[in-house]
Amino acid sequence: MSPSPALEAALAEAAQEIDARFDALLAVPDDPRAGLYRAMRHAAIDGGKRLRPLLVFATAKLFACDRDCAARVAVALEAIHVYSLIHDDLPAMDNDDLRRGRPTVHKAFDEATAILAGDCLHALAFEVLADPATHPDPFVRAELVLDLARAAGPSGMAGGQMMDLEAERTTFDLVTVTRLQAMKTGALIAAAVEAGAILGRVPPEGRIRLRGYARDLGLAFQIVDDLLDVEGDEALAGKKLRKDAGAGKETFVSLLGVEPARERSRLLVDQAIEHLRNYGPEADLLRDIARFVLSRDH
Amino acid sequence: MSPSPALEAALAEAAQEIDARFDALLAVPDDPRAGLYRAMRHAAIDGGKRLRPLLVFATAKLFACDRDCAARVAVALEAIHVYSLIHDDLPAMDNDDLRRGRPTVHKAFDEATAILAGDCLHALAFEVLADPATHPDPFVRAELVLDLARAAGPSGMAGGQMMDLEAERTTFDLVTVTRLQAMKTGALIAAAVEAGAILGRVPPEGRIRLRGYARDLGLAFQIVDDLLDVEGDEALAGKKLRKDAGAGKETFVSLLGVEPARERSRLLVDQAIEHLRNYGPEADLLRDIARFVLSRDH
Repeated sequence: MSPSPALEAALAEAAQEIDARFDALLAVPDDPRAGLYRAMRHAAIDGGKRLRPLLVFATAKLFACDRDCAARVAVALEAIHVYSLIHDDLPAMDNDDLRRGRPTVHKAFDEATAILAGDCLHALAFEVLADPATHPDPFVRAELVLDLARAAGPSGMAGGQMMDLEAERTTFDLVTVTRLQAMKTGALIAAAVEAGAILGRVPPEGRIRLRGYARDLGLAFQIVDDLLDVEGDEALAGKKLRKDAGAGKETFVSLLGVEPARERSRLLVDQAIEHLRNYGPEADLLRDIARFVLSRDH
Repeated sequence: MSPSPALEAALAEAAQEIDARFDALLAVPDDPRAGLYRAMRHAAIDGGKRLRPLLVFATAKLFACDRDCAARVAVALEAIHVYSLIHDDLPAMDNDDLRRGRPTVHKAFDEATAILAGDCLHALAFEVLADPATHPDPFVRAELVLDLARAAGPSGMAGGQMMDLEAERTTFDLVTVTRLQAMKTGALIAAAVEAGAILGRVPPEGRIRLRGYARDLGLAFQIVDDLLDVEGDEALAGKKLRKDAGAGKETFVSLLGVEPARERSRLLVDQAIEHLRNYGPEADLLRDIARFVLSRDH
């Protein structure tokens, strides 16, 4: 299934917006930090599906948030995602040479530059969120920071990556793999949706359905990722596949089998869309994103 | 010169407070992230002079800030400092085996754990600052985040570390070394003082003298560091010394010579103290810290 025309337009718009924001944020200085900025640009610009920014935009749209505010939040979320990819690719971690069909940062530059480029994007994400330009209300800014920091840290993405490294040494059951993935991938996807709700000043009790959507979407996304690792096309993916089995890691696919895993991802996407039942056509983009996650081929 | 009794008490109190806060923040979970938390504890607890926390406490004291708020801010600042030490020690960066007389994190654990432990402390710093428990006013929290993120990122500490790596490949003049050090070490020292002023709700125009104090103090601190690298005792320092000359790096000492460098550090400390002339005895701790920076032997 190809993306709906509305989703296709939204994906293209998000990609262009995020590239333009990173381009402005990461202007290369004429000093000894030039390589550091080039490394950040290499990783951040013209890369990936921009799923997390798109989720920020699509959720912010539900609440008619200011587009410029949403774009600043979206680029901050993506900066965290990009930093995590740079660090995950390092030789001491997943040791990947290719990402999106291009050399990883430590290959194109060197390891020290890659570590620092990741660290800088990490700090820049919070700098962008806390800046008064992101939202006039400091309460909104502080909440955005708090939520993203939690999602990025040891209870979220980075904690999930640690569990993923441990997964090579021990055998995890389905409960533990689910928790690992909810942290490693799910936390940042959830933070993207939550950020849209925070921008929309939705009180926490009003965010329950959106959180359900994000949780199911994140899990479906990861199951599809596991399926693509087994069945995908390396040329399309632009990275090495078949790594999980090689590393002796349990995944949804190894624990459930290919067809039951595919079935579960379908069920989760149905559930994700069901969480949006109280929203009208303004949530169609979120629905399209959920269907797209299921059908993506890379 | 040994520290004044008041400073000695303040140093001990800050050390105890920060250890207790890290102990609570980094409780080891009973799951596959246990090693990650142990690595963070290894680096964060019972370590260093806690200069940055002490600067937060001493500045917050000027404005009679709540002690608990100041302690939360102090531990966030120190978390950034500790994360930077973990990453700087990595083989791809400064490749150090010892820190404060103990194995560095990648030696005691492994490289992947060290990278993630640094990343987690980085995120935790912003999580702590943005939490409503840090200050009831979200404007204060957002400003604390913004200032620390700027100090930590490519225009501050991490950018300075990148310049420091470049220093091994090129020859820097005094202007560039001064800028490098103002970023690498100075930015976080300045952020500690600034955080005290933010907590004290001092408007930016009222912070000019404190910024002057922090700038001169940071530079003096670094010159003393360079002197200790040449003249210090490795057993006292608990780390490898004489590295700058070995790496072919220019420092204040290589560019100025030992005695002129020492003279300059004295001058900077006098200047730092002079910036505080409008404050009474409530600034004595800041004055003592400046004198202590000059006289420290490790």
